[in-house]
Amino acid sequence: MAADDLVELAKRRGFFFGSNGAYGGTAGFYTFGPQGAALKRNVEDAWRDRFTIREGNREIEAPTIMPEAVFEASGHLDGFNDMLVECPECGASHRADHLVEDATGIEDAEALPGEEVEALIADNDLACPSCGTPLAGAPVENFNLMFATDIGPGDAQPGYLRPETAQGIFVEFPRLKEYARGSLPFGITQIGPAYRNEISPRGGLLRLREFTQAELEQFVDPEEDEPPLDRVEDVEVRLYPATEQAADDGEYLHTTIGEAVDDGVIGSPWVGYYLGVAQEWYERVGVDMDRFRFRQHLAGERAHYAADCWDAESEVGGDWIEIAGFAYRGDYDLSKHDEYGDDAFTIFKRYDEPKTVERATVDPDMSVLGPEFGGDAGAVAEALATLAERDPDAFDAETVTVEVGEGDAAETHEVDADVANFAVEEVTETGEHITPHVVEPSFGVGRTVQTLLAHAYREDEVDGEERTYLSLVPEIAPQDAAVFPLVTNDDRLTALADEVAADLRAAGLAVAYDDSGSIGRRYRRQDEIGTPFCVTVDRDGIERDGPDTVTVRERDSAAQVRVPVDDLAGELAALRAGESFDALVDRYETVATDVETN
Amino acid sequence: MAADDLVELAKRRGFFFGSNGAYGGTAGFYTFGPQGAALKRNVEDAWRDRFTIREGNREIEAPTIMPEAVFEASGHLDGFNDMLVECPECGASHRADHLVEDATGIEDAEALPGEEVEALIADNDLACPSCGTPLAGAPVENFNLMFATDIGPGDAQPGYLRPETAQGIFVEFPRLKEYARGSLPFGITQIGPAYRNEISPRGGLLRLREFTQAELEQFVDPEEDEPPLDRVEDVEVRLYPATEQAADDGEYLHTTIGEAVDDGVIGSPWVGYYLGVAQEWYERVGVDMDRFRFRQHLAGERAHYAADCWDAESEVGGDWIEIAGFAYRGDYDLSKHDEYGDDAFTIFKRYDEPKTVERATVDPDMSVLGPEFGGDAGAVAEALATLAERDPDAFDAETVTVEVGEGDAAETHEVDADVANFAVEEVTETGEHITPHVVEPSFGVGRTVQTLLAHAYREDEVDGEERTYLSLVPEIAPQDAAVFPLVTNDDRLTALADEVAADLRAAGLAVAYDDSGSIGRRYRRQDEIGTPFCVTVDRDGIERDGPDTVTVRERDSAAQVRVPVDDLAGELAALRAGESFDALVDRYETVATDVETN
Repeated sequence: MAADDLVELAKRRGFFFGSNGAYGGTAGFYTFGPQGAALKRNVEDAWRDRFTIREGNREIEAPTIMPEAVFEASGHLDGFNDMLVECPECGASHRADHLVEDATGIEDAEALPGEEVEALIADNDLACPSCGTPLAGAPVENFNLMFATDIGPGDAQPGYLRPETAQGIFVEFPRLKEYARGSLPFGITQIGPAYRNEISPRGGLLRLREFTQAELEQFVDPEEDEPPLDRVEDVEVRLYPATEQAADDGEYLHTTIGEAVDDGVIGSPWVGYYLGVAQEWYERVGVDMDRFRFRQHLAGERAHYAADCWDAESEVGGDWIEIAGFAYRGDYDLSKHDEYGDDAFTIFKRYDEPKTVERATVDPDMSVLGPEFGGDAGAVAEALATLAERDPDAFDAETVTVEVGEGDAAETHEVDADVANFAVEEVTETGEHITPHVVEPSFGVGRTVQTLLAHAYREDEVDGEERTYLSLVPEIAPQDAAVFPLVTNDDRLTALADEVAADLRAAGLAVAYDDSGSIGRRYRRQDEIGTPFCVTVDRDGIERDGPDTVTVRERDSAAQVRVPVDDLAGELAALRAGESFDALVDRYETVATDVETN
Repeated sequence: MAADDLVELAKRRGFFFGSNGAYGGTAGFYTFGPQGAALKRNVEDAWRDRFTIREGNREIEAPTIMPEAVFEASGHLDGFNDMLVECPECGASHRADHLVEDATGIEDAEALPGEEVEALIADNDLACPSCGTPLAGAPVENFNLMFATDIGPGDAQPGYLRPETAQGIFVEFPRLKEYARGSLPFGITQIGPAYRNEISPRGGLLRLREFTQAELEQFVDPEEDEPPLDRVEDVEVRLYPATEQAADDGEYLHTTIGEAVDDGVIGSPWVGYYLGVAQEWYERVGVDMDRFRFRQHLAGERAHYAADCWDAESEVGGDWIEIAGFAYRGDYDLSKHDEYGDDAFTIFKRYDEPKTVERATVDPDMSVLGPEFGGDAGAVAEALATLAERDPDAFDAETVTVEVGEGDAAETHEVDADVANFAVEEVTETGEHITPHVVEPSFGVGRTVQTLLAHAYREDEVDGEERTYLSLVPEIAPQDAAVFPLVTNDDRLTALADEVAADLRAAGLAVAYDDSGSIGRRYRRQDEIGTPFCVTVDRDGIERDGPDTVTVRERDSAAQVRVPVDDLAGELAALRAGESFDALVDRYETVATDVETN
């Protein structure tokens, strides 16, 4: 199915649609309708179950607006840009790198300097896609992708909508480590909105200005902590390593997580562990594993601090799209936030036994420094202390040279060595401060939703009629079941159907109720939104001897069984938890329906 | 417990804390820690279960950024303001109405005109709370509380962070009514972030700049739809009607929903229905109903379009705080968005039988109007059509007078009546377009969390030692259970404890694992975050004949029973769903603990 068809289907059936249609629409924003919001929530719950609860990690919820200082430290303020070229004629904005890539076949034009992209635009006579005006000579500028706002009135503080949920975790590390009682490894997760003010949003849920991320930041001691690789070592994966992508006849590598880590194809065992967990999770929620792969980042794609990066990719409408990223980020994130160097963003790692170490110290005579250096005296004393730590041998000379101030205000001072009162002391240390490394599995929730819809789409014939349906797994389907009275002119049937629906809802199941149109039409409606089971209350079920029964129809096979009302909630809950419908076929009376699917 | 103590407890135990502490903090923003995020999610799930699933409503998820046109229509752009006064000396911003209220005892100063508030500031010699400078003469200005941003690059479109989730529902009504197959009543819910750029944020979760709402918009036909009041008519409530608030010796009214609606104390049956549902829901999630009331809005508090408004209020730290609002909003919201008058925001209501009605029409002779009125001819024809509908008798005269254009450009034209070709036709109508009315229960999720913590806080003595604990109901507690090996130097115990914890997590339970410190200390840690049940793996449980057993301790009573490992997940799930611990005491061996609580 083409991507456009999927978007149309999603709109018609209440999964998602472009927002603010009554106001002409707003590019880059989508609203999840009733089916889509339920599907998305089920994906989030399944992710939480796997990546938070079962891993013993902890989930937090941080605000979406954050102050400027956070993004100064994280690097987003300076570096979170796309290349923008504005048409001098019509004023339309375009991604300059995308124009160049589309026209020249160059890959990853984003990595090129702006002037080079300007030159490529001129050399290739590229024109504005909106109005056809030549773009040669138009400047290529860096456009920061963060949405800016002002926090508070008057002397407002600049703030930004977070471009990733991760920063809400990193910035609170000083407190989060307390909750973890100061010991590694521990993992913090967050599911929530993130924002990127895209220059050219794309259709569907692929490149939005507001989207949902599910991120895990796993904090580890790089020297000691190892992942429980044995749990996933036998998981089979399809890898697309960087070397194969670069080769002319590059091929997928079919292997196991254990082998790929042993062979060094996957550089980080932690990344390998989470690739294995993710592979099993994607299969559980219904991704077609024949349309799924892990692709390693090429050297140019990777952030400079990231040692090993892989994307999970799914095939949708003929294209491979990134649906998750797995990166070993080293100590980059925490060290960036430790701006005051006060160890708030480190962990104190206790030695097995206390160590005695030599430490160089100074105790400058301020009665000499004061008169000599005036206002600089304090800075000189500090510089001496720093120098003692870094280069104790400098104090062997008669005078010591230090520099204070920065940039143009920098000044060099000479100090008599004996004024510094340099000494080497023996101190006992019980441990050291280390900056944890970060392993980050980062999932796009909307892209997962889009993948699941695309992979669940089916067409077949039932009873000689064409039908389309969504073969979503029960855990993920928006509705757990639908309840129908077979006819509406029999009060006994409608009363029992009402009761059955209320009971199922009280048992925590998401249940649709439908009494409009023929039963076949009602089945089709549910097939189209992927409801796995339809419950019909018919006369046969209440008129026969014994307890009241209803029919339960399975979506894909259209097979039906007759189940006592008292068993219904338990059976549907078991089916949702993964039990096969065949188990019900074995245990209950099947209903002949003359229906054939093919 | 005082509000400040609650905030301190919440921070220490991982419920919530002011965001960005490492960067000096950002007023008005809180981060939910691991316990708080879980508690909040449980509150949201319980709300969804009651107000979406069991009511048969539909939940959607809309973006948090919306374009300016939406808020032009909704009235927020012009009217969503607070009164701001800026100190001329130090530049600090203050809520002018709050300064006046605090100093004068005037209630609801927000309702006064700005000049009057300026006069009150001068008359009462009010000074800047930050620096003491007199504020007399400083202008009181309207400050719009929406966070503004720019959508897209270049010719950016102004956008705002939504001040309430409701607008994301109203604006999509044209599509949502399709999903409801065009028939009333139907209800749409949404749970998500909302934003208000408060001038003076308050402590804790009470007045934040970013917060979570759970809102239900119930769309009804005002002439026909009635709520299922019988379901809640016997629910007992404590009401604080407007008349009692105004009276000198005003008292609470203890009554039932049914009586309050019958007596007209609650003006709208729909509002009455949701007050009843909410009363039961608050009780279910653990609000202390002796510290809870429904307070009716005073006439001055109510928006002009709202026929009846009630707040749910809870007592926290000695103050009554609003935790939900219930309003009958009439057709205000949808008619505001129906700017093009194209009936997109209406429902087509079919008559029981088609009606034949007379309709006045015109068919102006454009070959006359054209030469006579030139560029105005089209507008004149339109004006004639409008006039025919509004005042058909006008066409009895020889000439008809119409006005075209607006404001200064308005012009009056005379047209010969026969040129208009006026006629009255009989047409058959099958129905009419009506604008649904809106009933809106709107819940503050963070304020509910804060209420639950305050109401669950307990101090007692266990085993002669003081303890503090949170008596949260199992459905809401952040952790469903904690698992401990009694000692860590016995591999059999730690292996079984690991296995038990993994099994419980696989069964969907949120489980903490703790093997550090004495067992008493571990119990206290869980008591402090409100974990209702602690599971301890001890030697006795694995050394005795029969299947392995563990002890299960209930938080409030500290009573313990011994439960077979195989039964554990099922029993804990039942306890979470509301089963009493006494049922386990009846069925299993109790463990003597010598522990007394009082």
